[in-house]
Amino acid sequence: MNLTIERDILLENLNIISKGLPVKTPMHILTGIMLYATDTDLFMTSSNSDISVEVDIADSRLQIETPGKTVVPGRFFIDIIKKINSRKINLCVSDDKILIIKADRGEYKLHIMDPLDYPKIDFVSQDNPLKIKAEVIKSIVKETVFATAQSEKKPILTGLNLNCSSNKLIATATDSFRLAQKVVSIESENDFNITIPSSSLEELCKAIDSYNEDLNLYFTQNKLLVTYNHVCFQTRLLDGNYPDTSRLIPNEFPIVVKFNKDELASAVERVSLLSPRDKTTDKEITFSIIKFSIKKDRIVEISCNNTNIGDAREELIPTNLETNSPITIGFSSRYLLEALKSFISTEISLNISGEIRPFIIRGDMDSNLTQLILPVRMDN
Amino acid sequence: MNLTIERDILLENLNIISKGLPVKTPMHILTGIMLYATDTDLFMTSSNSDISVEVDIADSRLQIETPGKTVVPGRFFIDIIKKINSRKINLCVSDDKILIIKADRGEYKLHIMDPLDYPKIDFVSQDNPLKIKAEVIKSIVKETVFATAQSEKKPILTGLNLNCSSNKLIATATDSFRLAQKVVSIESENDFNITIPSSSLEELCKAIDSYNEDLNLYFTQNKLLVTYNHVCFQTRLLDGNYPDTSRLIPNEFPIVVKFNKDELASAVERVSLLSPRDKTTDKEITFSIIKFSIKKDRIVEISCNNTNIGDAREELIPTNLETNSPITIGFSSRYLLEALKSFISTEISLNISGEIRPFIIRGDMDSNLTQLILPVRMDN
Repeated sequence: MNLTIERDILLENLNIISKGLPVKTPMHILTGIMLYATDTDLFMTSSNSDISVEVDIADSRLQIETPGKTVVPGRFFIDIIKKINSRKINLCVSDDKILIIKADRGEYKLHIMDPLDYPKIDFVSQDNPLKIKAEVIKSIVKETVFATAQSEKKPILTGLNLNCSSNKLIATATDSFRLAQKVVSIESENDFNITIPSSSLEELCKAIDSYNEDLNLYFTQNKLLVTYNHVCFQTRLLDGNYPDTSRLIPNEFPIVVKFNKDELASAVERVSLLSPRDKTTDKEITFSIIKFSIKKDRIVEISCNNTNIGDAREELIPTNLETNSPITIGFSSRYLLEALKSFISTEISLNISGEIRPFIIRGDMDSNLTQLILPVRMDN
Repeated sequence: MNLTIERDILLENLNIISKGLPVKTPMHILTGIMLYATDTDLFMTSSNSDISVEVDIADSRLQIETPGKTVVPGRFFIDIIKKINSRKINLCVSDDKILIIKADRGEYKLHIMDPLDYPKIDFVSQDNPLKIKAEVIKSIVKETVFATAQSEKKPILTGLNLNCSSNKLIATATDSFRLAQKVVSIESENDFNITIPSSSLEELCKAIDSYNEDLNLYFTQNKLLVTYNHVCFQTRLLDGNYPDTSRLIPNEFPIVVKFNKDELASAVERVSLLSPRDKTTDKEITFSIIKFSIKKDRIVEISCNNTNIGDAREELIPTNLETNSPITIGFSSRYLLEALKSFISTEISLNISGEIRPFIIRGDMDSNLTQLILPVRMDN
């Protein structure tokens, strides 16, 4: 293999390829990036247990002198290309043992691996794509993925569920204490119900960060392939049935209280400063519970008691309040703050159905986005 | 105690006070900030094992209703004031048990500590100051402190030595593998030789970041007090005799090679990408040794061999070269990169006196700044 390529196009593609490189892997060969140069194209492939990525560079900024195939140490290759200032880079395999990277007055030799050892990646066949705008995927991920479970106790909950029926796509994430749901209209010939690992979606969003056209989606039972331009991004799907969350969301809300979103968020942030901390590490206890009370005088109070440090209390004047009785609920301030961040609306509503029943958050400008939080039982 | 103060002036002063708060301390009372309101002034004090800070706020933006003294939980107090948006803040001690912080519609109650338990801080008496411009101290710290020892094996080396004799101040930092030295002229009635903990200097520089006038310095045997505006910043000094480094710096340099600083730094950065890593953590081994060779053809080569990954080699054309023979030296790329960052000059010179003798770096625009690095013996 011997080729010359402009540094910018190589680096741009390596940034995408890096999404498929494993952080840790028992298969040493997967720490490498497969390079495959034909007469006209340079293919690069990476793969880890969740994600496989392939790019196909066929560009006037690439000149292939000798086709060939090799596997180069991934992180080192990327780090070197990143730091090189030269406009052009020559890549040449010597003796089937080393890749020589030449750029200006620099020369880097990397021990290569045997391309025969690189596992064959089965990409889903590209028939009959489902087309979705990149920005639709990006906004769904931003609005929901934070609510997926971090723990592996119920693996299916670490993913985002996409359930499509009659052109209505419902995206749902839940860790069983909160839920984020976005509904969008798409044009799909087939119904489907898949659950995608949240980390794969986050990597996909980084890869398509500056891409705003259509994505092509292809499914099998256990894989999703996303293609755009010259990029194939494939992720495994999570096994198992996603729980039916439709009955979780209450239908009736006797209490609806509206706030300026930023005012609510900054009051909650301040109050949660005093939420209990782990004494040994001085870190906040993960769920930092706060109390939310609607008082008789129709004023809302957000508060928190910390027996070691003190108390915090903020009064808020809702922009609107529909209720017939005072109520106090307790919940995680972190959950509320993360949910609030998902809205673009400046005014949001808390829709409350009872002290220990889930409440939901909606925004006027965020149609079809629902954030749900399960309160905790308060002692006082 | 009962007072009202504008949030901005309080926060600005708490930022300075935070430099004296301990990260960890066996004395619980020192996690607090001492507040002492007289009829006219609010004093705030913090102290840890190295640093004590006191500010004296006497400002039209402060109104004291009732004088008093208390000790408030430091980090919580600062965090709350930081997050408050309101322009004015009321601080009121209730029942000698709690400090009530009121701001707009928020109310925070912090358990306070007994001011009688707070240790008396002995600040050095303020007679006969040595006056130094803040920017002189800031540039000395930036140019030298990185070379102090990180390990506590020889405690004196964790500090910056300031040796003043006949109005010539020599600032020296060394970890015994490299040395940074800056010489400046000052007007001092007395000679002195003190060693200041590097962490104290870094905190001082943060505190005086936006201050550019004179600082007043006062010494005793084991303390340095720096005052400016309404701030007293005191640090302990390190015990012991600082080693005599004057004989470390060679006098004659048969080889002088000049480079564009950024070209040299970026070549060294690239080559050091392949310096050996710790397999278990994938972290670079701290000293990442590279080879620096002046070849027969007067070209300079920077290189590095990593048996696991491969080799790196960069050729550099010096902007000037005085030598009579080829030479190869090996040294830590990290030391060189940190040293290069301390220069404002665009062209720097490496002054070499032998394969295993210290070499020094100087810059045309950085008069009186010397960076010295001790090479390591190379096997090949």
